[in-house]
Formats: sequence, structure tokens, C-alpha cells
Amino acid sequence: MKILVANLGSTSFKYRLFDMADERQLARGGIERIGASESPCFAEVGGKRHELQAKVPDHVEAVRRCLAQLTDPEHGCLKNPSEVAAIGFKAVHGGRVSGVQRVTDDVLAAMEEMNLVAPAHNPPYIAAMRQLRERLPEIPLVAAFETGFHQTIPDRNRYYAIPWSWVQQHQVRRWGFHGASHAYIARRAAELWRQEGRNSAGLRIISCHLGGSSSLTAIRDGQSAATSMGMSPQTGLLQNNRVGDFDPFALTHIMERTGLALGELLKQLSSQGGLLGLSGKSGDVRDLEEAAAAGDVRSRMALDVFIANIRQYLGWMLVELGGADMLVFTGGIGENAVGIRAGVCANLGELGIELDDQRNRATRTEGDISSAASKTRVWIIPTNEEIVVARHVQKLLQG
Amino acid sequence: MKILVANLGSTSFKYRLFDMADERQLARGGIERIGASESPCFAEVGGKRHELQAKVPDHVEAVRRCLAQLTDPEHGCLKNPSEVAAIGFKAVHGGRVSGVQRVTDDVLAAMEEMNLVAPAHNPPYIAAMRQLRERLPEIPLVAAFETGFHQTIPDRNRYYAIPWSWVQQHQVRRWGFHGASHAYIARRAAELWRQEGRNSAGLRIISCHLGGSSSLTAIRDGQSAATSMGMSPQTGLLQNNRVGDFDPFALTHIMERTGLALGELLKQLSSQGGLLGLSGKSGDVRDLEEAAAAGDVRSRMALDVFIANIRQYLGWMLVELGGADMLVFTGGIGENAVGIRAGVCANLGELGIELDDQRNRATRTEGDISSAASKTRVWIIPTNEEIVVARHVQKLLQG
Repeated sequence: MKILVANLGSTSFKYRLFDMADERQLARGGIERIGASESPCFAEVGGKRHELQAKVPDHVEAVRRCLAQLTDPEHGCLKNPSEVAAIGFKAVHGGRVSGVQRVTDDVLAAMEEMNLVAPAHNPPYIAAMRQLRERLPEIPLVAAFETGFHQTIPDRNRYYAIPWSWVQQHQVRRWGFHGASHAYIARRAAELWRQEGRNSAGLRIISCHLGGSSSLTAIRDGQSAATSMGMSPQTGLLQNNRVGDFDPFALTHIMERTGLALGELLKQLSSQGGLLGLSGKSGDVRDLEEAAAAGDVRSRMALDVFIANIRQYLGWMLVELGGADMLVFTGGIGENAVGIRAGVCANLGELGIELDDQRNRATRTEGDISSAASKTRVWIIPTNEEIVVARHVQKLLQG
Repeated sequence: MKILVANLGSTSFKYRLFDMADERQLARGGIERIGASESPCFAEVGGKRHELQAKVPDHVEAVRRCLAQLTDPEHGCLKNPSEVAAIGFKAVHGGRVSGVQRVTDDVLAAMEEMNLVAPAHNPPYIAAMRQLRERLPEIPLVAAFETGFHQTIPDRNRYYAIPWSWVQQHQVRRWGFHGASHAYIARRAAELWRQEGRNSAGLRIISCHLGGSSSLTAIRDGQSAATSMGMSPQTGLLQNNRVGDFDPFALTHIMERTGLALGELLKQLSSQGGLLGLSGKSGDVRDLEEAAAAGDVRSRMALDVFIANIRQYLGWMLVELGGADMLVFTGGIGENAVGIRAGVCANLGELGIELDDQRNRATRTEGDISSAASKTRVWIIPTNEEIVVARHVQKLLQG
């Protein structure tokens, strides 16, 4: 079974194509600047990259164009577009609809209900999935919701202390996101644990997905027990340009002082906050590390707040699990930012967490970076969200 | 020097009178239902209680009436009202004005700027202090702000990841509250630590003030290093009927679905949230424990969410301090709720925290309730916020 996993932006379409017989990635590719007069398209098959420019007015044409590239007799890897059993989407927020779902009118309606909560994520997915359903009905569409892995979170870590009708009638609770990544880490970390001859029953993992957006999850025996994101993907840790946790009672105060409307404030919190807001320079950790090294005080401060945010949630997860067997760093920042990892783990020896400085600096791929004395094993594990989505889609199609 | 420490509600005035020579409490008293046709007034001097009814139209008359009771030749403890060197107030939120301050126009203006952030706390204090300044100018007024103790919090635990202009121009940051209580715990816990023959330099304390409103603070070497409340006293842990942490991006979603305005939602979060909102029954831990014991599922769930909230912040504080020497429970709930303390400390042996069940059940006043094996000493310490305010006032008056 061959499954195409899509990653959508409002003007972009990226994909990976898997052969589920051996979970091998057959191809990857994508199209940028959809709707512009010329859109760059690329496909990588068997390590070879092919590029072209084409007029791609919308996401349906983007998918058609990609399928054409994949079935190109010279460069492609498919004989026929119908070999693609389904397109899987890492959908963000369906509220009342979670887990893995065929894309139906009800699924799209549920996602629409959450548009105000996930304004950057839901609308482009809904628009593209709707177009594809109408104009490419021969390809099954499956949504694997980012909230799905967090369905096991117990009530105590689930509910805000709000009027109960908001919970019951309006789906207001801590949903949690990055489910595909945390699920990948849960499975892979347990494999690594067993490879060292240990029993993984009851294994306690803290998964730190740090990237363009970031979250921490406490995993007990393969299941999510608590996570840092809440009702929306804007809460928890600060993100590149999004706020993270914030006090709603500050909003009327700022509205009164600035004369700005609530919608405008939330927009600023979603686009001018995070590392960018604090530093005034960039939302990219690499830029900030460079600026901080050159003496920029606010860049250093932004990085320190980010590290403190991660430590805040690391503490919660440690207490939730009563101690951790494994602490895993993943995502673009988690896998690459030596200084962020060192900051997060600093001064935690008494709580059983200690990095090996040399390993932390030298490890570039999957590997244990903790000291021999560390009770908690600290690992870098590169994440693979697409294969998790592909597995979910396969399982659904197989009934 | 004799100092009267006032505790104001919108229709109440309570006080304690201290002789700062030996920090002895000379008297306590108060007036309820100010503005009603008859207001009950009481004073306790030397263990004897005196009650009367009187017409008390406002807070100025309340203070006059209390001073009259205190100078009563038969029951009183003062010869002359002028013996009261100052009235000290545990003021909540002055934003840009913090610490200990003589009440001036600027101090009142600063408090007014924070009215929308602390709507339950600031307005009655401002109204009463303004009246007293005008009509009882002979008595110096001093405000000891609840944010004062938290002025030592480092930037990393201070700033939200927001547009920097909001920080600079609008005083939006994690201010923290319950400063008087946490300051009392910081000093008293260090005394107890030294009484056991240990050096208190660098002592790491986690102070859990749990009561009608609740917060946790990490204290390093006597100074606040992090605290659970933020810009407003409505964030952090859930409170009796107030929300605690909440996701601002849920607000527009609820507004759209209910048609309610932002102000109304914030009002509901301040009065119909917390333990009350979750349980649908009561905001009082004792009521909920009784209902849970009788099988009420939502009451049990509300208590579990409260405990999980406390554990969330306990984790942060543990990581911030790199481990804790003392964990202190204080406040009405912290000092009395055996089950809440047991829940908070459950399953933390690996992280160095273990209660002694018998001690936890039996201890009714100041005492160590941890097991012999517990690396962190867990104490109950009854708080005394008024004496902290009185000490601050004395220090200010003495220049």
C-alpha cells in the first residue's frame, strides 16, 4: 500500500510518499507559491531531484501536478496515480472530532468550528481538503488529528477551571497538539529502551518537541499523560513568533490603553510574540544565538525565557510521572540546538538529569547524550511525523 | 511603635494592632456590612471580645469607630488614637509601583491603572485609602504591595513572550502576588532550618500558599525566584471561584458561540470558575471533600484538578531551584487540608519528597510532616501576613 502524506500551507503543498510494505519513503516533493503566475515544483525520487516551473492555481492542481511528476515514465516511481491508496493529512484541530478520520462533511465542519482557535492551521487545510474532495474524489482523504495522541490525558490534566457549560457545550479543554511527533517518540524511545535489554512496561518518557512550534508531553507506558499546549496551539511554551502561555486578564488592560480590538491583540500575540517579540530581532534560535554571542542583551533574554519555559513544563512532566526514565529532545531545535539542550538540563543533577557535555556537543543524530551518572537517560531522537500519519492512514484503510 | 494593619473588603474593614517593640498583637477587630443601616463591630483586646452595632456609612467612619473601641477607657488598649503610628495596607496591584509606599496621589493612580487587572481587589482599597487620606489626614497610610516580594524574580521567569512594547509601555509581565505570605514563610522556614543546626545560606524553599486564593513561590536564599501568579491574581493555580491559567485564544471562540462580550466572559472566569465551576457545587475544599466522599464525581474531579495544578507548579519550582530543601504548606487549605497535602506529595519519592502519613494527619500547627527518608523537609507553617506588613511599615517609617 502506497500512502502520500501531505503538509499544507496556504500557498504551499509538500508531501512524502511511503510504501507501507516496508515503510520506505519512495519520494518527496512539493510546490511553493501556489496561485502565483509561476510556481516552483520539485520531486525527489531515489535520491534524484527534479525541478520545474508551472502554473498551479490551487491545491487540487498542486496534487495533480505532483502525481504527474510521480508517474513520469522517466523520473517517477509510480505507474499510475491510482497506486496512491490515500492522502493523509496531519490535521491540527477538530475539537470534538479527533483521532484518525476519513475526511467527511462532518469532519470539515468540526474543523471549521475551531477556526478561531487555530487560525493559522485550520483554514488552509479545510480549503484544500474541500477542493480535493470535490475535484479529485477518486483519492481517499484521511485526517490524522494532532490532538489524537492526547486523548488518553486524564481529567486532572485536561480541564481548565471554567464554567462547566464551556467544557460541555463549547469543547473548551486542553487538547494538546504535535500528536504525531510525540507518538513517534513514544514508540521509538521504547524500542531504544528495549534494545538496551530493559523492559519498557510502564516506561516514563518526557518528549520535548522543539521546533518552529514546540511542546512537551509526559508519556507513561506509551500514552500521553499531560502536555504543554492547551485549547489552542498558541499556549504552553513560547513559539517562534507566537506567545505561549498568557494571562487573559491582561487583554482588557491592553485594549483600554491602546484602543486596539481583541482580534488585533490576538493577531499580534500570534505573529509578533514569541522569540521574535522578546528579542525584537528574529524568531529563529540560530539567529538569536548568534546575536547573543555578539552581545545582544534582548536576544540572550529571549533564549533564556525560552529555556525557562521548557524547564517550567519539564518540571510539571517530572512530577506528573514521579520521575522520568527517558528525556527526549526532538524537532528542529531539539535535534540541533546544543545550547538550548544544555540550558534545559542545567543544574538538575539532584533530580536525576545530567548531560554529558561532550556527547551533547558531538551528537548529530539519534543518540544518548546523558552522563553515566544520570538516572534519566537523555536522548536526541529525530522525529518522523509523516511515517506516523502514514501508519494511521494504513490502519484506517485496513479497517 | 504601634501599627494597625488593615484588611479591606468593599463593605468590610478588619484589622490587627501590633506593638512593634516585641511584635505582640495588642488587638484585632473589624466591622462588617459597612453602609447598611446597622453594622456589627467587634474588638478583641487581651483575649476579651467586645461587640456592638452602629451606623457606619463608610470606611472612614469604620476606622474612627475602631479607634474609638481601641481607646475605650474600660476595654481598650490605647490612651489616644495618635498612638497608632500608621495604618498599613496589604495592597494588591500597583503595577509600576511596588514594594512599600506611603499612599500618595501617584500610588493611588498607579493602582487605578491596574483596576481591570485586579477588579476584585484594587477598587475597594483605592476608594477607602482615598477617603482616609482626605478625612483622616493625621494618620499616615502605607501600602505594602503583594507584588513587592517578587521584585527579585529574574527576567527568564518574569516575561511573557509578547510584543516588547506591551512590556515597556503597559507593564505587562508576571507580577506575582501573596508577597506578604511568601515573605513570612521565607523568613520563618529559614529560622526553623537553623534551629535544627543547619546553615540557611542558599536555602531552597517551595512555599505553597493555599487558601481562598492560592499561589506557589520558589524561594532561593530568602528571595522569590519564580511564582505561579502572573499579570493578574486570576492566573496560576485555580482559585475557589476564579479560573487560574487559561488560554486567551479560547475567548473569541466562546464569544462567537455564546454571543457574550469579553467583559462578561472575564467576569464569569472570575466568579464562576475555579473549584466552583468544575464541581458545580462549591468553591470550598471542605464541601468538596465531603461531597466526594459521598460519591459526587465532579467534586472529586475538581479536587483532582486542583491537586494537579499544584503539582504542575511544584514541578516548575523544583526544576527552577534544582531540587528543594523545604516544601512548606500554608494558608487555610495548606494548613488544614490533609488530603490535599497527601495528593500534592503522592508518588514523589524519586524526586526526594515523601510525607509521613501519620504526621500529615496529626499535625495541626507548625511542624515537620515529612518521612525520615524525605530529602526535602516538608512543613506546615501557619502564615502571618499582617506581621509582615507591620514590619514593612515600621521599616518605612523609621526611614
